[in-house]
Amino acid sequence: MTRLERRRSGMRDVAERAGVAMSSVSRVLSDHPDVSPAMRERVLATVNELGYQPDLLAQSLRRNETRSIGFVGADISNPLLAHIVRGAETTLTEAGYSLLVTNSLNQPELDLRHVQLFEQRRTDGLILLPVRERNRPLIEELAQFEGPIVVIDRNIPASVNASRVLSDHRAGVQTAVEYLLDMGHRRIGLITGQRVRPSAERRAGLEDAFAARGLQKTYVVHPGAYTEEHGGEAMRQLLELDDPLTAVIAGSNQITIGALRVLHERGISIGPELSFISCDDVAATELHAPPIAVVIRDPTELGTQAARLLLKRLRDPDLPPEHVVLPTRFVPRASCVPPQAMGAGQPSAA
Amino acid sequence: MTRLERRRSGMRDVAERAGVAMSSVSRVLSDHPDVSPAMRERVLATVNELGYQPDLLAQSLRRNETRSIGFVGADISNPLLAHIVRGAETTLTEAGYSLLVTNSLNQPELDLRHVQLFEQRRTDGLILLPVRERNRPLIEELAQFEGPIVVIDRNIPASVNASRVLSDHRAGVQTAVEYLLDMGHRRIGLITGQRVRPSAERRAGLEDAFAARGLQKTYVVHPGAYTEEHGGEAMRQLLELDDPLTAVIAGSNQITIGALRVLHERGISIGPELSFISCDDVAATELHAPPIAVVIRDPTELGTQAARLLLKRLRDPDLPPEHVVLPTRFVPRASCVPPQAMGAGQPSAA
Repeated sequence: MTRLERRRSGMRDVAERAGVAMSSVSRVLSDHPDVSPAMRERVLATVNELGYQPDLLAQSLRRNETRSIGFVGADISNPLLAHIVRGAETTLTEAGYSLLVTNSLNQPELDLRHVQLFEQRRTDGLILLPVRERNRPLIEELAQFEGPIVVIDRNIPASVNASRVLSDHRAGVQTAVEYLLDMGHRRIGLITGQRVRPSAERRAGLEDAFAARGLQKTYVVHPGAYTEEHGGEAMRQLLELDDPLTAVIAGSNQITIGALRVLHERGISIGPELSFISCDDVAATELHAPPIAVVIRDPTELGTQAARLLLKRLRDPDLPPEHVVLPTRFVPRASCVPPQAMGAGQPSAA
Repeated sequence: MTRLERRRSGMRDVAERAGVAMSSVSRVLSDHPDVSPAMRERVLATVNELGYQPDLLAQSLRRNETRSIGFVGADISNPLLAHIVRGAETTLTEAGYSLLVTNSLNQPELDLRHVQLFEQRRTDGLILLPVRERNRPLIEELAQFEGPIVVIDRNIPASVNASRVLSDHRAGVQTAVEYLLDMGHRRIGLITGQRVRPSAERRAGLEDAFAARGLQKTYVVHPGAYTEEHGGEAMRQLLELDDPLTAVIAGSNQITIGALRVLHERGISIGPELSFISCDDVAATELHAPPIAVVIRDPTELGTQAARLLLKRLRDPDLPPEHVVLPTRFVPRASCVPPQAMGAGQPSAA
């Protein structure tokens, strides 16, 4: 039996004998405020009865905590992710935890390896934004992880007992597309990343908007990856359609950079020649001439909420996982204007 | 004696008896390729002589390594830092190490706390880009750290036995300023961050350029912090000088964003009304209209080199620390034009 197992068995003995949950023993020993006097008395009586020293058990309990949280993210050179990390870090630091961040460089194998690393390090919890959703070895590893887990903006099987913080991309993109439709745009392109929740939600928002206006599905979706390379390549292909688009929505900041680069190279005037909407505001869209319309969300708040959900279950491991959905908002800017002669749609006020 | 101490003492006994360095014992036991047959024989003979089982010692050795490296950075929501992390991560992952990243949110106390955390976690090495250079508790902590340390772009006292990767900001800024001087600019502003190496180097580059052209010191330096807020505030103050500037150099990407925002708000035409140069290329400067001239470096390479210097000393702890200086380069763009009527300098071809 390792020391750690011995410590745990001490607490388990107490929990069994007293007929209470391990987490109740833990709360009493760590002086948690949410403990009834009756529970405190019962646990401490059992501790005495079994001959354990409450101070030593409490100390073990404290030692058993590493006060660190692992963060596994697809690519932290994405400014969006950097802000999520910042939000989580600030909240966890205030609560006395440290955040250990790993960068999976968009490689699903590294997601798995980083979760294993954090398991070995006995981090108290995990915050996760994995590259892929259907990564079976990762899902199996997570299902075994002992501490609480929070997943950000991904669909994860129920076998992983995780809380989730999600962005309502669907509503934001629907509003953006309705704005374009009401301007008279009909041929609209959407460039998305790999097959993860945000890609599917944005596509659904596009479909909802056409359905809400009772219009034919004259849109084109170009999925791929959340990279500048895919943004550029997809933009090039969308520009070669026989029936040209009059508006394009880029489904991430990296996709936007790649697409804008191609439009600049070709000398295409954003607004008059092609309306353009980005997702997630970054300096490049804000300071662009013309400024780029965006579907925004608060990435720091995503991180903050993830940390809060995690802290809740760290304090009370018996709590069930929770889901929080944070809003997105469409911000119209000069990059969107009614379609000009080159557009193939039939302009009409809806 | 803890298990860890026992393991170490086993290796130390062998090293002493064989009259070789601990690192040589370590190399033999870990099957390192750079071991002479003579050295291998000598170490293994001593291991047998002392009655140790080489396999068990090797296993202990392996267990003693955590195969993880700690990264302590001022603020990873800075895209520059995110690229440094990406470069380091890629190189370390290839070598079988994981990088654990912490974010100090620009708070020097968090730098210290993160180094302590990595010490407790027994990470094998540290890569560091601290908020402040003169943080005494941090320096003392680093001086005690057992593994190799690499510091990026900071001046650190010799008491810390660290390798360093530096950027040659001075040469890049000198070239940029000479370009402005040769266009006829004389009243030039430089906005820098807090008192760390890059700020001092950029200032020195500005001074060098004026000295090289034999000109009076008609420049203004506005130090502060590497933040958008400081960039905006400094830009506002520089615009209020009685003797107006004709060109401004923003000494970081965050400073640039803040300064550009103010120039946009005031409707100041970049180029004709004020020439502008940034440091470190980001999408916002590249895609700006007009494109912003920049002093660039390769941030991914900074991270790659940091990881390489660290790996060298992980393989051979007896190696002395090394310093590597990476180049910067000035890229002229349309944001720099000869000063117009509003400039106060005396235009002249140098």
